[in-house]
Amino acid sequence: MDINEEALSLHKEWKGKLETTSKCAISSRRDLSLAYTPGVAEPCKVIAKDPMAAYDYTIKSNTIAVVSDGSAVLGLGNIGPLAAMPVMEGKAVLFKEFGGVNAFPICLDTQDTEEIIKTVVNIAPAFGGINLEDISAPRCFEIEERLKKLLKIPVFHDDQHGTAIVVLSGIINGLKITGKKKEECKVVVNGAGSAGIAISKLLLRYGFKNLTLCDKQGILAKDSENLNWMQKQMMDVTNPDNLHGTLADALKGADIFVGVSAPGIVTEEMVKNMNKDSILFAMANPVPEIMPDIAKKAGARIVGTGRSDFPNQVNNVVAFPGIFKGALKGRAIQITEEMKLAAAEAIASLVPDDKLCDDFIMPEAFDPRVSETVAEVVMKNITDDNRF
Amino acid sequence: MDINEEALSLHKEWKGKLETTSKCAISSRRDLSLAYTPGVAEPCKVIAKDPMAAYDYTIKSNTIAVVSDGSAVLGLGNIGPLAAMPVMEGKAVLFKEFGGVNAFPICLDTQDTEEIIKTVVNIAPAFGGINLEDISAPRCFEIEERLKKLLKIPVFHDDQHGTAIVVLSGIINGLKITGKKKEECKVVVNGAGSAGIAISKLLLRYGFKNLTLCDKQGILAKDSENLNWMQKQMMDVTNPDNLHGTLADALKGADIFVGVSAPGIVTEEMVKNMNKDSILFAMANPVPEIMPDIAKKAGARIVGTGRSDFPNQVNNVVAFPGIFKGALKGRAIQITEEMKLAAAEAIASLVPDDKLCDDFIMPEAFDPRVSETVAEVVMKNITDDNRF
Repeated sequence: MDINEEALSLHKEWKGKLETTSKCAISSRRDLSLAYTPGVAEPCKVIAKDPMAAYDYTIKSNTIAVVSDGSAVLGLGNIGPLAAMPVMEGKAVLFKEFGGVNAFPICLDTQDTEEIIKTVVNIAPAFGGINLEDISAPRCFEIEERLKKLLKIPVFHDDQHGTAIVVLSGIINGLKITGKKKEECKVVVNGAGSAGIAISKLLLRYGFKNLTLCDKQGILAKDSENLNWMQKQMMDVTNPDNLHGTLADALKGADIFVGVSAPGIVTEEMVKNMNKDSILFAMANPVPEIMPDIAKKAGARIVGTGRSDFPNQVNNVVAFPGIFKGALKGRAIQITEEMKLAAAEAIASLVPDDKLCDDFIMPEAFDPRVSETVAEVVMKNITDDNRF
Repeated sequence: MDINEEALSLHKEWKGKLETTSKCAISSRRDLSLAYTPGVAEPCKVIAKDPMAAYDYTIKSNTIAVVSDGSAVLGLGNIGPLAAMPVMEGKAVLFKEFGGVNAFPICLDTQDTEEIIKTVVNIAPAFGGINLEDISAPRCFEIEERLKKLLKIPVFHDDQHGTAIVVLSGIINGLKITGKKKEECKVVVNGAGSAGIAISKLLLRYGFKNLTLCDKQGILAKDSENLNWMQKQMMDVTNPDNLHGTLADALKGADIFVGVSAPGIVTEEMVKNMNKDSILFAMANPVPEIMPDIAKKAGARIVGTGRSDFPNQVNNVVAFPGIFKGALKGRAIQITEEMKLAAAEAIASLVPDDKLCDDFIMPEAFDPRVSETVAEVVMKNITDDNRF
């Protein structure tokens, strides 16, 4: 049975990958009166007086919502909230298995920005954080920004920031290996949706100076047509040489390529035209922008993909569980840029110097140190005004 | 340590009575690719084509939301969504422990009827049913009615229907013991909020003919002032003798009293004026409308309360887990009046004839047959047009 058939058959067997379980046994009248009435009135009264006590007495302290409207699910596109459920359940499972964080899938029967924002605000009391997932751009930017302002719990769009953190961590190790300097590198990001934009922002914040965004129409420049508001905003900080042309043009003399775009759109020729010791993250799934063997033959030094069957898998799972674990444990109000940068550095540092090489730039997803280490640096980066 | 202190200290230890747990181990790359990408795309694609397949591949098949706005929590009143959390978590725990149904607390940061309805509709995709809880009357009636029309999954306000089912089951056994006939009984229900109204409706549907509602102002009649729309509606089917006056007046010659009201408001004198072999359910919590020993001394034959330290505890937990277990298993679109009546009969039948007596009219909450039996009769009562 191939993996797809097996996955389908297993999902049918599981009938849901998640369950809710009780932490307290209810096997006597006394148990019932402690966990339910009349005893339950006591924590209720305490929280009614001091809302922050919810963190001491309820699941809010360690539970997040995995929220999606099903508008941009995996490579499947706008398949809606019901069809998005298996992904959101899977994500919830990963939060628990890798980060010890309880997570529940909230799949929304609306794709209207205002409705999504209102709904998430309305259900927020039970949750200590909101992980947005698979919401299409540019709505995802506004939804996240507005929710961050409206809620006093961390809001994090994983497609943006989880991806950005993991890509940056790989690039940090790529720079170590190749000796390239971030200030001097020419970076090309192909795909100007949620992931591409967030990756670009984080790379710029990390210190890259020359970064160019491309999408289907080629290089994005100030005078490009049909840019959405977020892409327009990015034109102030990217493409410093005001390049115009195709992806192939952008890659001439580039040091780093990050693809969150479409299968096979990078050719051998394009890679040949990049600088020496080039670093490629070809993350289109399941078929990357260029296959690793071809990229290497064309001169690329380090190649990462989203796939587990090639070296250097770029996998969000090394980021998001630890991010929320740390944010919840440290009672952060928001997940900040500093935390994201620190998380990327921490993930990169988990590959020991003596093992670091072209084909081993990322820690294994199953390395038990990963979420703990990420959580620790997130907690270290919670400033006093960002803690409640 | 008294039970309240112990409950508070345990809640602090638990930091949430519920957790989300994975049903599938994620301990290898292969596990990850089966439960998450790329394998997870398969059930997504199947559901995208056939939305009903969500019941085969996701938690929707066996998961409900416990939804509250915190406006009428226990006897504590309008304490808001955060303070309501311990109760909703407790309820979720009982759903799982007693009925095997996954349940997650959704505590809403709004008490606006329209907002509540919209929010519940928006989050419905992940759930196979909605249990409304502790929402104040009369908003609870409109919210439930409108959600039943908007959603194709069971919506059930437990404060109304769970209570009504359990009270009816006790009364059914009370009639068996006393030999009273439902058509001839005079019934008084004190408290005209969500529970009192729902109890009255179910008793009338069961076949009682003479039922009078009272509240703080005494007997409710067609010309009573300040009736809400639901109470007005009830005036068409209750108080057939057009009584006016106090609760004491209503109880003269009554056979059955059901109190969902306030501590100590029924006096010995009032019970003395009831008919022979009277049946009293004094369910104010924690202090009943009249203490059982006083009621018995005054001539009552059967007395039930909400408390676990007296005989005949009227406890919703014998109803709601089985109701949803059956509705989900049988894929009912709605929980109908027929199901509620059948559930009440089934619960009553679980007290064997040779044990049935004045002080044993209800099965124990921990009797493992209860939720199974209730689920079975619910499933039996799913008509073809109520199944998907």
